[in-house]
Amino acid sequence: MKLKMAMIGGGIGSFIGPVHLMAARMDNMIELVAGAFSSNPGTSRRSGIEYGLSKERIYDDWHDMICKEAGLPDGIRPDFICIASPNHLHFKPAMEAIAAGFHIVCDKPLCLTVEEAIQLRDALRTTNKLFCLTHNYTAYPMVKKAREMVRDGELGIVRKVVVEYLQGWLSDREEEKGNKQAEWRADPARAGNAGCMGDIGTHAFQLSEYITGKKVEKLYAQLNTFVEGRLLEDDGNVLLNFECGIKGSLVASQVALGEENAFSIRIYGSNGSLRWEQMEPNSLVVRWKDRPMQVYRTGAGFKAMGHIAGLHTRLPAGHPEGFIEAFASLYRNFALHLQSYKKGEKPDPDYDYPGIEDGLRGMRFLEAVVRSSRNKKWTNV
Amino acid sequence: MKLKMAMIGGGIGSFIGPVHLMAARMDNMIELVAGAFSSNPGTSRRSGIEYGLSKERIYDDWHDMICKEAGLPDGIRPDFICIASPNHLHFKPAMEAIAAGFHIVCDKPLCLTVEEAIQLRDALRTTNKLFCLTHNYTAYPMVKKAREMVRDGELGIVRKVVVEYLQGWLSDREEEKGNKQAEWRADPARAGNAGCMGDIGTHAFQLSEYITGKKVEKLYAQLNTFVEGRLLEDDGNVLLNFECGIKGSLVASQVALGEENAFSIRIYGSNGSLRWEQMEPNSLVVRWKDRPMQVYRTGAGFKAMGHIAGLHTRLPAGHPEGFIEAFASLYRNFALHLQSYKKGEKPDPDYDYPGIEDGLRGMRFLEAVVRSSRNKKWTNV
Amino acid sequence: MKLKMAMIGGGIGSFIGPVHLMAARMDNMIELVAGAFSSNPGTSRRSGIEYGLSKERIYDDWHDMICKEAGLPDGIRPDFICIASPNHLHFKPAMEAIAAGFHIVCDKPLCLTVEEAIQLRDALRTTNKLFCLTHNYTAYPMVKKAREMVRDGELGIVRKVVVEYLQGWLSDREEEKGNKQAEWRADPARAGNAGCMGDIGTHAFQLSEYITGKKVEKLYAQLNTFVEGRLLEDDGNVLLNFECGIKGSLVASQVALGEENAFSIRIYGSNGSLRWEQMEPNSLVVRWKDRPMQVYRTGAGFKAMGHIAGLHTRLPAGHPEGFIEAFASLYRNFALHLQSYKKGEKPDPDYDYPGIEDGLRGMRFLEAVVRSSRNKKWTNV
Amino acid sequence: MKLKMAMIGGGIGSFIGPVHLMAARMDNMIELVAGAFSSNPGTSRRSGIEYGLSKERIYDDWHDMICKEAGLPDGIRPDFICIASPNHLHFKPAMEAIAAGFHIVCDKPLCLTVEEAIQLRDALRTTNKLFCLTHNYTAYPMVKKAREMVRDGELGIVRKVVVEYLQGWLSDREEEKGNKQAEWRADPARAGNAGCMGDIGTHAFQLSEYITGKKVEKLYAQLNTFVEGRLLEDDGNVLLNFECGIKGSLVASQVALGEENAFSIRIYGSNGSLRWEQMEPNSLVVRWKDRPMQVYRTGAGFKAMGHIAGLHTRLPAGHPEGFIEAFASLYRNFALHLQSYKKGEKPDPDYDYPGIEDGLRGMRFLEAVVRSSRNKKWTNV
Repeated sequence: MKLKMAMIGGGIGSFIGPVHLMAARMDNMIELVAGAFSSNPGTSRRSGIEYGLSKERIYDDWHDMICKEAGLPDGIRPDFICIASPNHLHFKPAMEAIAAGFHIVCDKPLCLTVEEAIQLRDALRTTNKLFCLTHNYTAYPMVKKAREMVRDGELGIVRKVVVEYLQGWLSDREEEKGNKQAEWRADPARAGNAGCMGDIGTHAFQLSEYITGKKVEKLYAQLNTFVEGRLLEDDGNVLLNFECGIKGSLVASQVALGEENAFSIRIYGSNGSLRWEQMEPNSLVVRWKDRPMQVYRTGAGFKAMGHIAGLHTRLPAGHPEGFIEAFASLYRNFALHLQSYKKGEKPDPDYDYPGIEDGLRGMRFLEAVVRSSRNKKWTNV
Repeated sequence: MKLKMAMIGGGIGSFIGPVHLMAARMDNMIELVAGAFSSNPGTSRRSGIEYGLSKERIYDDWHDMICKEAGLPDGIRPDFICIASPNHLHFKPAMEAIAAGFHIVCDKPLCLTVEEAIQLRDALRTTNKLFCLTHNYTAYPMVKKAREMVRDGELGIVRKVVVEYLQGWLSDREEEKGNKQAEWRADPARAGNAGCMGDIGTHAFQLSEYITGKKVEKLYAQLNTFVEGRLLEDDGNVLLNFECGIKGSLVASQVALGEENAFSIRIYGSNGSLRWEQMEPNSLVVRWKDRPMQVYRTGAGFKAMGHIAGLHTRLPAGHPEGFIEAFASLYRNFALHLQSYKKGEKPDPDYDYPGIEDGLRGMRFLEAVVRSSRNKKWTNV
Repeated sequence: MKLKMAMIGGGIGSFIGPVHLMAARMDNMIELVAGAFSSNPGTSRRSGIEYGLSKERIYDDWHDMICKEAGLPDGIRPDFICIASPNHLHFKPAMEAIAAGFHIVCDKPLCLTVEEAIQLRDALRTTNKLFCLTHNYTAYPMVKKAREMVRDGELGIVRKVVVEYLQGWLSDREEEKGNKQAEWRADPARAGNAGCMGDIGTHAFQLSEYITGKKVEKLYAQLNTFVEGRLLEDDGNVLLNFECGIKGSLVASQVALGEENAFSIRIYGSNGSLRWEQMEPNSLVVRWKDRPMQVYRTGAGFKAMGHIAGLHTRLPAGHPEGFIEAFASLYRNFALHLQSYKKGEKPDPDYDYPGIEDGLRGMRFLEAVVRSSRNKKWTNV
Repeated sequence: MKLKMAMIGGGIGSFIGPVHLMAARMDNMIELVAGAFSSNPGTSRRSGIEYGLSKERIYDDWHDMICKEAGLPDGIRPDFICIASPNHLHFKPAMEAIAAGFHIVCDKPLCLTVEEAIQLRDALRTTNKLFCLTHNYTAYPMVKKAREMVRDGELGIVRKVVVEYLQGWLSDREEEKGNKQAEWRADPARAGNAGCMGDIGTHAFQLSEYITGKKVEKLYAQLNTFVEGRLLEDDGNVLLNFECGIKGSLVASQVALGEENAFSIRIYGSNGSLRWEQMEPNSLVVRWKDRPMQVYRTGAGFKAMGHIAGLHTRLPAGHPEGFIEAFASLYRNFALHLQSYKKGEKPDPDYDYPGIEDGLRGMRFLEAVVRSSRNKKWTNV
C-alpha cells in the first residue's frame, strides 16, 4: 500500500510544488491525499483539484488541515506531511505536524533561526518521528559515488573544496515585477535573514559537508547586494575552514547573469580529485596522481558506479537522468525508511536522506555568514 | 479523472516496462489498471503486484486480458492498451485491442513487416482509434525546437543530415549470457529481420524525417554483423537520399564499444545548422552564417525556446530534464489527445506524438535497409 | 646548422604559406632561403621580401628557381623544396626538384592522377630522395597515441571507423566572390577531379588508414554538389571497407554551415574504443569494456601519454598546443630524417611523417570516390 | 631587419626558456643574438649552442653579458634583453640592462618587493625604455575580445568576477625530488615571499584587472600550505573588492591534484556575462539577459571576433591556436612597439602588452595577500 502524503504550500504557480509531486509519484510508493496548498484559499482549492484531490481534503489553512487529518482513521490518515511553503512557514507547521503524530518532509532552509532549528530537533528526538530535508542534490547517483569515494579514502587526504552555486535569474529586481518566486525570496519576513545564501548557499554548504564527511568549523563571508533596493543579499563569497585542515571556497550568486543553475563542487585530495556539476549530473570527473583522468557515468554498470550510486539510478547508461529523478530518489529513500519504521525494522543506511541535523547545520551556516559578513571576522559555524 | 491504461509486456526485469510506468505517472493523467506483463504467468503476476494492481486484473495472457477488460463497464474499462512486449508481439495484440475498442500506445518498431503495418493502419482508419508509437526522442524540448526551426525556414534550405545512433552494449554475445534484453533482440523470430536497425536505427530514421519534415526516398545500406554467431546485424552504415535533394548519412551500431546511448543528429541548411545530442538533451547548438554560434537551452524562458518546446519542459533552466521526462511528455500528449477525443474536441496540434504513419515508415525503412544491403543497390523506402 | 628550404607557392594572402613558415621556424632547425611564391611575379616578390629573403633569391617562376638554386654551392643551396602551391602545381615542380637533387615537402593531395603519383614514387625510388606529404594532422600527439594504442592491440580487434571532416566555409559560392582560397579549390583545372574530397576528404582517408594501420580495400561513395554552378563536389558520404573486415563511414563536407574545421575520428574495437577531435586536439577519449572512460591528455606526463606522443609535445599539460605545433612537428620529423640522411645514419622511426605512399593512396582514394559515385558501385581503392 | 634579443636565464631544462624562443621566432620579427642562460656556465654554454648562437656571444654571467653586448656596434648590439630567470634574478639584471640602454622583456612576477618595482618603474620613466612583462595570457584572442566587450559596455555594469588558477603539479614535495622547476619556486630566496600566488596568482590577478579595466582596491586572503615541509604557500583563496563595487573571488592552487593549467575567468555584468578558460582558449562563452548564449570563436571571421581579437589570431576558425601562439603575439606586439620606437613613430595601441605598471600592481597584490593572510584583515592593494 502506498504511503499517504499531505502537503502544505506548493500550489499551482509555485516551482517546487509540482516538483515534489512528480518526484513523489515516480516510484509509485507515495500518494497525495490532502493539502493546504496556499495561503490564498482560492489557489489552494484550485491546486487541490488540479492535483486530483477530492474537495473534502483540500484545506484553506494548514493548521486546520493538520488538526482534521490527524483525526482520520488509520489507512486514511496521512503518514507524513510535506512542507513546501516559503521559509517562514516551515517551523510552525512542522512543530504542529510532529505534535500531531506526523512524519515530515520539509523544504530547505529548515527555518528562520538556529533556535527554531534546535526546538525542531528536540521535538523530533522526543517523538521519534522521521524528518527529511529536501537537499535533493544529495540524491544524484554521482553525488553518492563522490561521497563514497571520499569515505573510502580513494582521494587520499582531502585538502581543498571549491563549491559554487550560481544563478542569474535575480539579476534584475524580479520581486517588483510580479514574479511570485522572487517576491518571497527577497522578503526578509518570509525568507529570513539571508537571501541567496538561504536559497542556494545552504545547498552548497550542505553538499560540501555531505561529500567530504567533514564539518565546516569557521568561515569568513562577504555578502553583497547588487540590485538596488533589494533588502537581502543576492550574492556572496565565503572562505571555509573545515575540520582536519580542509580549506574551501564557496561562491554563490543569484545575479550571475546567464547562469542557469550552475551548482558544482570540486574536491582535491592528496591522491586524487573529483568534480561534479549539477547541470551535467550523470558524469563525475575523477583525476589521479599517476593515471589519466576518468569519467564515471550514471548507469554505466553497477560495478563501475559502485553499489550505492547504483541504487540511485533507474536507467541504463546514456539515458539521461535529471533533477526530478534525483528528487524522486530522496522521496523513495524516505519512503523506504518510513516503511521500515512502520514495520519496526531497521532501515537500510544505503538509502540515506538529509535530516534535521543537516537542517540545523544549515541554520548555523546562515547565522555565521550573516554575522561574519557584518563583523568582518572569521566566525564559527 | 485519470485515463486508464492496461499493459501488455513490460514486466519486472524488462527495461522499457518501468520506463512506461514512470512516464505515464509523471503528469498524473494516467493510471495503470490491468496488465498481462509477461508470457511467463509467474512473472506477470509478480509484476502486477509490484506495480500495485489488484489480482483480478493481472492476466497470464494478453488475449485473455483484452477479452475480459473489453467487457468491463465504463469508468473501469481501460481507455487504452500499452504494448511494451518484444517486436513480434506488437501486431496481433494491437489488432485485437483495436477490434475490442481500445486506443493504443505501442513500442517501436511497429511490427515485423510492411504488410502488417498496412493492416494496422487500415484497422485504425476504419475504427478511428488513436495510436501512439513511442518514438520517445521526439518529445524532448530541443527536438521540438529543432523541428520548429526547420519548419520555419530558419536554417534556409536543408542540404545535409548526419544522424547517428551508437551503443556498445552488444559488443559481446550478451544474448548467450542470460541477458534478457539481448536475447529477444538477437532472435529473428522475436525481433524481426533487423537487429540494430530495428532497435535503434528506426529511431534515427524517424527523427531525421521528423525534424526535417522530409521523407527519405531511397537509401543505400551496408549492414554488418561483428559478433560471431549472431543472427542479425549489429551495425550498419546507410546513405540516405531525402526529398528535395537532401543527402544524409545514418550510422547505427550496438557494438560501438564504450558508447552508451549516443543518439545525435545534425542538420545543415543554406542559412544555418543545428546539432542535438540525446545524451545532453537540454542543449541545441545552432550555428549561423554571419553570427556566433548559439546554444539554445531547455527551460531558458519560453521566449527563446519557442512556444512548442516550452510546452514540453517542466523545469526552469539548468534543472536537467532527461529521458523519463521526454517519455512522459509523449504520454502526456497522447493523454491530451485522448481527452479531446473523448470530449469530441479537436486536439491541440502542438502536443503531437508519432503515430501509425511513423510506424509504417519505419517498417519500410527496415525492409529497405535489409534489401539494399543484400542487393547492394539503392532501394526505395 | 639549419636545413635550408626553398618554397614554391605559399605567398602572402595564401592560408598555407604562412603556416608552413611558422611551422618550419618553430624548432629552429630550418630556414627559408629562396622562393617562387606565386605565379604572379609581383606577389612572389612582395612575399619574399615580407618573408625576409634577399632579392636575388626571390623568383618569378618556380622552374627558374629550381634551375638556379640547384647550381648554388653547398652550404648555400637549399636542402629541400617545399611545394605549397595549388594541386595542379605539385607534380611538375616535384619531378623537376627531384631531378635537380632536392628533397621535397609537398602539400596534399599529392597531384592530379594516380599515374602522376606513380611516376613521382618511381622518381623518388630511383633517386632515393626524401619526400614528406603534409598530412599535418598525423603529427598531433594524441593521434600518435591513438595509432600506438591500435598497433599495440589495446582496443582488441578493430571493427568500425567513423571519420568525419566537416567545414562550412564553402556554403556559398565563395569562388565567385574573390576568395582566392576558394577559387582554385573549385576549379577542376587547378584542384583536379575532386573538390571537397581532395581538399579534406583525403585527410580523413589518410588518418583512418594511419591510425588503424589497415588499408581501405573498397568504398562506395555518393558525392554531392549543393552550391549551384559549382563544378566540383562540395560534399560527400562514403562507405569504407578496410582489410580485416573493418567497416567504416567517411563523411566530408565543405557546405556544413557553421562547422569550422571539424575533423574527428572514432575507432571501435572489441576491447575498447577511442575518439579524437581536431578542434580539441589535446584530448583523446578512450573507453573500455569494464572500466570507466578515460581522457588521455597531451603533456600529462610521458608515462601516461606514451613515448611517441611525448616526442610530439612541447609543453606541460594544460598549455594548449594547436595546429601550428602539429604542423611544426611534421617539419621537425622531416628535418631529423634529413639530418640523418645527410650523415648517412638511420633515422629514428618514432619521428615518422607521411610520404609518397600516402600520396599515392590518396590519389587512389580520389579516383575511387569519383568513380564509385559516378557508377554507383563498390570500387576498389 | 629583425630585432635582436639577448637572453638571461631560460636555458635548456627550463620550461619557459624554449617557450620564449619559440614565441619570439614565430612571426619572424626577432632573432636571438646573445645569452647568459644559466648561473651554471656549462648549462649556459650548452644552451647557447643548442639555441644556435656562436660561442663568443654565449656568456657565463649576465652582468658580463650586459656590459659586453652594450658595447657592440649598432646592427649587432641587441635591441632588448629578455629576462627569463627565476624571480630573484629579475630586478638587478633589469636595472643594469636599462642603465646600459636596453629595452626589456621580463617574466612575471616582476621582482621581489614593491620597493624594487617602484625603482624599476622610475628607471624606465627616466630612460624612456620599453618594458614588457610576460603576462602572456592577455594575448589570447578571446581575452582581447573579452576586454573589448567589457570596455564597450556590452555586459552593462560589471558586478562580479570569479577567477581561478588551479594546478596540481606540486601536490607532492617535488622540490625535494630534483624537479628544477619546483626547486626555485619553493625557495623563498629565489621565489620571494609568495609561492603559488607569485607563480600563478599574479596571472589571475592581472587578468581580472586587465579584462575589467578596474583596479582591485582591497582584498582578504587565506594562504595555505598543504604539503608538509614546504616553506611557501601552495594554495590560497582570496576575496577581492574592485573599484566601482565589483566583488570577486580568486582561487589559486598548485596542489589541486589533477588540474593541469586550469586558468579561467568569469565576469558577470548587469546585461551579460562571459567565461573564458585557458585550456579551451579559442572559445569565449557569452550570455545575455534575453538571448540564447553564444560562443565566440577564434578565427571565426574578423567581424564576429572584433578587430583587436582578429589582430591576435593567425589561422581560420577551427584550427586551434594555443599557448605558444599567444606568447608569440606578446612578442609580436612588443616588437611592433619597438619598431615604432626606433622610427620615432607612435605605436598602434591595439597591439598592447602588459608593462611595468602591471608589474608594480602584481607586487602590490603579492604584498597584500601575504599581509592579509597573516593579519586576517582586509588589506589595500
